Amino acid sequence: MSQERDTRTAFMEATYRALCTHGYADLTMQDIADETDKSKAALHYHFDGKDDLFREFLAYLHEGFAETIADHPEGTPVERLVALVRRVLDPVDDSADQQFNTAFMEIKAQAPYREGYREVLRRFDADLRTEVADLVREAIENGQYDEETDPEEIAEHVLTYIHGTWTRAAAVGADVVAMREHLVDDLLDLLVDGASVPVDVDATEDRGLAAADPDEPHENSSEDVVDPR
Amino acid sequence: MSQERDTRTAFMEATYRALCTHGYADLTMQDIADETDKSKAALHYHFDGKDDLFREFLAYLHEGFAETIADHPEGTPVERLVALVRRVLDPVDDSADQQFNTAFMEIKAQAPYREGYREVLRRFDADLRTEVADLVREAIENGQYDEETDPEEIAEHVLTYIHGTWTRAAAVGADVVAMREHLVDDLLDLLVDGASVPVDVDATEDRGLAAADPDEPHENSSEDVVDPR
Repeated sequence: MSQERDTRTAFMEATYRALCTHGYADLTMQDIADETDKSKAALHYHFDGKDDLFREFLAYLHEGFAETIADHPEGTPVERLVALVRRVLDPVDDSADQQFNTAFMEIKAQAPYREGYREVLRRFDADLRTEVADLVREAIENGQYDEETDPEEIAEHVLTYIHGTWTRAAAVGADVVAMREHLVDDLLDLLVDGASVPVDVDATEDRGLAAADPDEPHENSSEDVVDPR
Repeated sequence: MSQERDTRTAFMEATYRALCTHGYADLTMQDIADETDKSKAALHYHFDGKDDLFREFLAYLHEGFAETIADHPEGTPVERLVALVRRVLDPVDDSADQQFNTAFMEIKAQAPYREGYREVLRRFDADLRTEVADLVREAIENGQYDEETDPEEIAEHVLTYIHGTWTRAAAVGADVVAMREHLVDDLLDLLVDGASVPVDVDATEDRGLAAADPDEPHENSSEDVVDPR
């Protein structure tokens, strides 16, 4: 890695830390420089202001996100789909994560006003949509989902639901795991009769968008399918 | 209505307009006063700063929201449930509405840092949750949904999905009507075999979280069920 690249990575990591401490709205270039051993002048040498820095920061986050969603464990398509949802909606346990989730929501709210923000945010959505739709298609080929299932519609549904989970967690402190497991139940409810995944819930007989105990499938699912973080 | 009350209502309406123009983050007490025929001093006489004003503004918005969700048209429980979802997720047509949706997202992102914001935001959620759960309970009694359906789980699902719709609309300009009709399809998919509502979609045979054409039920539903706005 070149020195230039090291410096930029250091600034990205500093931006993450500064966001967790200050939030987005009040964040200054000085706050970010303070998280490094560089000066504010050095930060301005690399970035043409806060908007420019944040376009790169969003791209940096997107890179990590793309790696996260591509990192599938072994298993049937539906197992991998459930694992994907659980990985993306990993509960925010410590306060730094919660602060970051809230700051990210501020950034989403600023997107209409800031050049280039929406374009990167759309890439997060496009990647997740593609990944979910591909897994649903595999599940259909594999016989876990029936042929009437529409991969694109499921992907859209998952995307909206995931954004809602993040928003409710940030806005009113709603429980991420409970919301996430509702979505998991939705995905298990689509299994054709007789199909199953190593999750202790009789998904095909449930009537309701998420009728099962939200904690059950999580506790009983195979360790192979779940990111143990 | 007393003069004091008139004045406060005028300030609330001014806050709405100022939010649409300036967003939340950069909004000053002066911007709000500028939307009225009163001075900034008068605004400060009534409100102890921006946070205090916004606590009252959120309560004012909540009052309107509570009226909106309580205003049910005639129809079966599931028709009224679908109408409720369509009313809450009314598409944002003009740019003022879009600006307001975005500003409201900024407010949600500020909620963890501002005293009293979360408490009011939770009331929006609690009211919507109660209304949805009550309608699902009625649908079960009425035989439209079967007895395994869990009203509280459906209500949670609807809540998360609605927040996701608002967030995606603000962050990346996603299509509110398409997302909303996915949710409507979810609710129609829960109908027991043989039950129907005046919506031209064979909900009980659909396999998929939202397999039907999102525009179909909207176009073909009875005018009685849908707020024509």
